[in-house]
Amino acid sequence: MINKLVEKIKKTNAPIVVGLDPMLNYIPKHIQDNAFAEFGETLEGAAEAIWQFNKAIVDSTCDLIPAVKPQIAMYEQFGIPGLQAYKKTVDYCKEKDLVVIGDIKRGDIGSTSAAYAVGHLGHVQVGTKSYAGFDEDFATVNPYLGSDGVKPFIDVCKEENKGLFILVKTSNPSSGEFQDRLIEGRPLYEWVGEKVAQWGEEHMGNGYSYVGAVVGATYPEMGKVLRKLMPKTFILVPGYGAQGGKGKDLVHFFNEDGLGAIVNSSRGIIAAYKQEAYAEFGEKNFADASRQAVKDMIADISGALEGRK
Amino acid sequence: MINKLVEKIKKTNAPIVVGLDPMLNYIPKHIQDNAFAEFGETLEGAAEAIWQFNKAIVDSTCDLIPAVKPQIAMYEQFGIPGLQAYKKTVDYCKEKDLVVIGDIKRGDIGSTSAAYAVGHLGHVQVGTKSYAGFDEDFATVNPYLGSDGVKPFIDVCKEENKGLFILVKTSNPSSGEFQDRLIEGRPLYEWVGEKVAQWGEEHMGNGYSYVGAVVGATYPEMGKVLRKLMPKTFILVPGYGAQGGKGKDLVHFFNEDGLGAIVNSSRGIIAAYKQEAYAEFGEKNFADASRQAVKDMIADISGALEGRK
Repeated sequence: MINKLVEKIKKTNAPIVVGLDPMLNYIPKHIQDNAFAEFGETLEGAAEAIWQFNKAIVDSTCDLIPAVKPQIAMYEQFGIPGLQAYKKTVDYCKEKDLVVIGDIKRGDIGSTSAAYAVGHLGHVQVGTKSYAGFDEDFATVNPYLGSDGVKPFIDVCKEENKGLFILVKTSNPSSGEFQDRLIEGRPLYEWVGEKVAQWGEEHMGNGYSYVGAVVGATYPEMGKVLRKLMPKTFILVPGYGAQGGKGKDLVHFFNEDGLGAIVNSSRGIIAAYKQEAYAEFGEKNFADASRQAVKDMIADISGALEGRK
Repeated sequence: MINKLVEKIKKTNAPIVVGLDPMLNYIPKHIQDNAFAEFGETLEGAAEAIWQFNKAIVDSTCDLIPAVKPQIAMYEQFGIPGLQAYKKTVDYCKEKDLVVIGDIKRGDIGSTSAAYAVGHLGHVQVGTKSYAGFDEDFATVNPYLGSDGVKPFIDVCKEENKGLFILVKTSNPSSGEFQDRLIEGRPLYEWVGEKVAQWGEEHMGNGYSYVGAVVGATYPEMGKVLRKLMPKTFILVPGYGAQGGKGKDLVHFFNEDGLGAIVNSSRGIIAAYKQEAYAEFGEKNFADASRQAVKDMIADISGALEGRK
């Protein structure tokens, strides 16, 4: 799956991923109205609005991008119907041949991590049959529990040719509270990054490992260090746009081959129509605004990558 | 909710929680057969088997115990039908007046943690209405992202009178890989524990905080230190029984008042009928075996607590 991701990035010339993290207040009124007319102001109504919103954005951007990253929390908040919309979104994106990174940030003790891995990336056995529960292509994983919380994910990835992105340095303001603390003179995130590189050796693709890392766009200097520490690790970079990261901050997340990183934008793409820069599209044409925002983001990042040559 | 938990512990005289973490291979054949006869060997069939298994164990033990802790991964592995069984289990346990600790180990950047908090502990707004998605009483939270990943959970807990247990030192063998690393001479888990105590001050119950901690039974010496570092923090202690923890190892997780900790056992209770000690009950009477295992666990822990007086 890492090979497919790299191929698709090369083909689209777009090292970006669209974060499908729909808040109800991002969703244009006409979509909410239609969904509520059919299902009422219920969890099912909210889920339908999310699904219609996602579908329109995917339809409008799928030829430009290699991957999407639905954030499961945004669906889980609407309970079971929300998770049904998540699953529908995953399936639809896969139909469109997009690589789907499930942003689930799971992680637990061994047997429990194995259950998450099976549910999101693998197949679960029921009597003589087996089923895929959510079936994303990649999943994000929290490393706080150490190797035996991560290994079961890697085992399932090996069976299924799927991949991971493991949290190393997160994009949020207080990520340094624990992640930046010095251990033998080096911050915790470097120790975690080193482990990610080691874990990655267990499951290599062509050039890059199936085991990637998450490093926030908001910490470019740290990205630079981590890039060198994990040369064969693909880095998923959240925090572009709305969270403050800019193209020029991101060049050091990439290797000299122009690969090695994929930059996520969520709000900046899916709610583009709400920004002044895209206001001309109007709420009805929100998906066209998203398409333009994708093009602008690709230009920003490609320009920055060109600029460093 | 922490007050309710403490009251129920005093009333049952049982500082224990039953982990409802059903693996299909724990579930007696007759229950699986019935479920598969109705729904086939499908995810729905697996979910039905889990639900019938849980219901029998809850019915057989609910008068003896204050709380249950369903591990959501064990349900999530069966996709949407599995999560429906999780929700059904949560609701049923609440009907039985048990305190429900959702072992979800979520944690993300601020806005995303807020969505998880709303989905599991709070109410989500849909137009003019609001709904509870999963509605557990407590949730477990991963602290790797720092304060702004945890605060949104605390905010929802304040609104809803609910609580948290935050991972400090986990029970698994490799938990020390990051958690034990020394920062200014003290292990990371102590720094996390100190933060948990601080966060806890923001939302105090009578004597104990709504913000608790997770510390594994498998590390009793560390439990002793953490107990003193977080005097008003309730500690959820996994790892008893099947993972190796014993009653006598656990006394230092408790305060002098005999409170301050609640010990989880999962496999040791729900799959008790598979152990030699309870084999006499037979597979058909698995729920009676679980009841006896609960009684034995209470006796083991109470005995150890008596013994230190």
